[in-house]
Amino acid sequence: MKSIYFEDYVTGESRTSTGRTITETDIVMHAGQTGDFFPHHMDAEWCKTQDFKQRIAHGTLIFSVAVGQTAGVINPEAFSYGYDRLRFIRPVFIGDTITARCTIKEKRDDPKRPTMGVVVELVESINQRGETVMAAEHLLLVKRKS
Amino acid sequence: MKSIYFEDYVTGESRTSTGRTITETDIVMHAGQTGDFFPHHMDAEWCKTQDFKQRIAHGTLIFSVAVGQTAGVINPEAFSYGYDRLRFIRPVFIGDTITARCTIKEKRDDPKRPTMGVVVELVESINQRGETVMAAEHLLLVKRKS
Amino acid sequence: MKSIYFEDYVTGESRTSTGRTITETDIVMHAGQTGDFFPHHMDAEWCKTQDFKQRIAHGTLIFSVAVGQTAGVINPEAFSYGYDRLRFIRPVFIGDTITARCTIKEKRDDPKRPTMGVVVELVESINQRGETVMAAEHLLLVKRKS
Amino acid sequence: MKSIYFEDYVTGESRTSTGRTITETDIVMHAGQTGDFFPHHMDAEWCKTQDFKQRIAHGTLIFSVAVGQTAGVINPEAFSYGYDRLRFIRPVFIGDTITARCTIKEKRDDPKRPTMGVVVELVESINQRGETVMAAEHLLLVKRKS
Amino acid sequence: MKSIYFEDYVTGESRTSTGRTITETDIVMHAGQTGDFFPHHMDAEWCKTQDFKQRIAHGTLIFSVAVGQTAGVINPEAFSYGYDRLRFIRPVFIGDTITARCTIKEKRDDPKRPTMGVVVELVESINQRGETVMAAEHLLLVKRKS
Amino acid sequence: MKSIYFEDYVTGESRTSTGRTITETDIVMHAGQTGDFFPHHMDAEWCKTQDFKQRIAHGTLIFSVAVGQTAGVINPEAFSYGYDRLRFIRPVFIGDTITARCTIKEKRDDPKRPTMGVVVELVESINQRGETVMAAEHLLLVKRKS
Repeated sequence: MKSIYFEDYVTGESRTSTGRTITETDIVMHAGQTGDFFPHHMDAEWCKTQDFKQRIAHGTLIFSVAVGQTAGVINPEAFSYGYDRLRFIRPVFIGDTITARCTIKEKRDDPKRPTMGVVVELVESINQRGETVMAAEHLLLVKRKS
Repeated sequence: MKSIYFEDYVTGESRTSTGRTITETDIVMHAGQTGDFFPHHMDAEWCKTQDFKQRIAHGTLIFSVAVGQTAGVINPEAFSYGYDRLRFIRPVFIGDTITARCTIKEKRDDPKRPTMGVVVELVESINQRGETVMAAEHLLLVKRKS
Repeated sequence: MKSIYFEDYVTGESRTSTGRTITETDIVMHAGQTGDFFPHHMDAEWCKTQDFKQRIAHGTLIFSVAVGQTAGVINPEAFSYGYDRLRFIRPVFIGDTITARCTIKEKRDDPKRPTMGVVVELVESINQRGETVMAAEHLLLVKRKS
Repeated sequence: MKSIYFEDYVTGESRTSTGRTITETDIVMHAGQTGDFFPHHMDAEWCKTQDFKQRIAHGTLIFSVAVGQTAGVINPEAFSYGYDRLRFIRPVFIGDTITARCTIKEKRDDPKRPTMGVVVELVESINQRGETVMAAEHLLLVKRKS
Repeated sequence: MKSIYFEDYVTGESRTSTGRTITETDIVMHAGQTGDFFPHHMDAEWCKTQDFKQRIAHGTLIFSVAVGQTAGVINPEAFSYGYDRLRFIRPVFIGDTITARCTIKEKRDDPKRPTMGVVVELVESINQRGETVMAAEHLLLVKRKS
Repeated sequence: MKSIYFEDYVTGESRTSTGRTITETDIVMHAGQTGDFFPHHMDAEWCKTQDFKQRIAHGTLIFSVAVGQTAGVINPEAFSYGYDRLRFIRPVFIGDTITARCTIKEKRDDPKRPTMGVVVELVESINQRGETVMAAEHLLLVKRKS
């Protein structure tokens, strides 16, 4: 674990994860973990009668995988405060491969905590065709060096 | 599936799910699904040296379970647009039991889509001591009757 | 939870679940849960040499899924007594979509328990071609209103 | 695979499996496989308010495990026809260890199939206190030698 | 459990397991169990750019499955000492069916333990084309009869 | 992915992973993945009658987790050739926390491949008491710079 302070974050910097193919297994297991067995995810026959024609991944699966993909480095000086503007932009189908891109979007003061700052990371899930399928703004509270 | 239109939603109305105990199994499987094996979730020895003293559930697990708990009724007139202000307020430990409460917080017009309205549902995860551990605002695009 | 009493059940009434596609994942996980790794379920090469030509789902998987599909409403006045005449009528293959239909087949007195009656529910699993693949009679002990 | 014919089954003969401790993991995964998240299985707090005071295993889990425990030997001459009188006799709690006992209860002719006979196996799940928690009669159609 | 002593093992004797098709589910679950989400196993798009053109199973998955396939009989007189010369000879792809063959390769004295001997079992995983994909030598410490 | 060549490996250098608590869930899922339901891993009652008094993790689970723990960095110049001297030195119980340590033990020429060298990594699993529970030598074929 390596300390990264508020001052160390550079607006505009980004990093990209390795890719991950979303499989039928992921969807079945996410249904099992959440109890969401909606036919959009679980009933291939019903899906054939819908606009998207096939089963789609749960939004919470795509979000959870994207957060996991970016969880490579532990920064002991940062605390996750939450997420803003989580949007599911395009459906993810079985066999799509998604990559997470994390960009420092903004740095701002935290009015209540003078020893910390807020770092806003834009987390995006991008499929194999280069389309953004999900986006969210991750709010990190990060200690200042001084 | 029963159609529920924009006009049918009543601000202030709420519904509560059955409870669910978050188990070690849930955490281990969520690590396996997301690839997030951070010691906060997976290393009981390291956790003993931290303020919270024990393993804590992934935020994305609690969010995914809460969304699943509220996924009881399919409304073919509604589309999930995303979530705002997702906040992880308190840690969830192994053995905590969480219940999801869904409250209609606000109804507003959608400037771009005159045939639809935006319903804002406040989704809260509440533990066995009555503490809110997570909150998020779910944005639903819902068709109008006319 | 809403109380449903013996008198409330109407012979001939039926309800149908949403559908669920039985996936390779379901079979692999059911083998893992039960320890039944028979080649009928797990060895695609051996199955090619058999009459059915492909892997088939475990009977206990289909039964468990059907019971789960009908487990939508909790009736605090009813106790599950068991099942009679559980029959596996047709094989279920990977990719088949099954729906559970639950029909009140019979109501009878319980000779030993005068304050209760026996409700016999016929549980059927039906595939995407309308064929019944499994049937069982669920015996419910239900409290009488008086 | 070794052929065992109708004539080879001996009424009264029994075999016992190795034991298996039913864990919280088994219950969480069975909920995930079946979609049955009833509080009897998943909500430790609610269970404390009930007669049994703690979470209980799904009946279909115990049945599936028992069938899996007895699935050691493949008999190419036998076909599973179904189960009669499946009864859930006592609750199974997390940490209980169950063993399956399989006893040849009865052999009878199959009126429709002269080349086969029906073997009735009594399958019982027995816990670490020697109590029978589940019983079912397995119907096997078995080829006759001549 | 039946005792098998050092003297009972016959060099050159072999046994073969039933087959098992390695599925996408197995790979996804093994990634989840081990935390190894390398693109070789999880990213179908990246794999298309590599020599093997498709996702490959983790070596530890194939090894674990092979050991499990041969774990049919418990010998209370034998202790597993470890494995030598574990080699991953060919890739295993999704849909390949592997069988484990176990051959008694060698028997030798254990210089430190006069009441025991070392039995070397060659464990091989063989795919549906008859190719050996993995091999390892299993070292068993086995009690002598006298 | 960053290229690391044969010349870059330094004998004696070591790295240590984050820790991971081995849970009942890991054991139940590994049984499910491998089909090894031996009572040593699955039957808490039987284990009470044995020397070790409690369930122990599968050796292949500990090996798979250790390999996964060390799989942090992809080196496109290295190929895994296999493992030598895999030894299960002490039992791992539910609740033990293991860390993987990887030490460059030896570098040697590959007589058949002049453009490559063999790097021998000692992989050790160490529990929360500092005891080595498993060890293996990982053989890497690594390209030379020239």
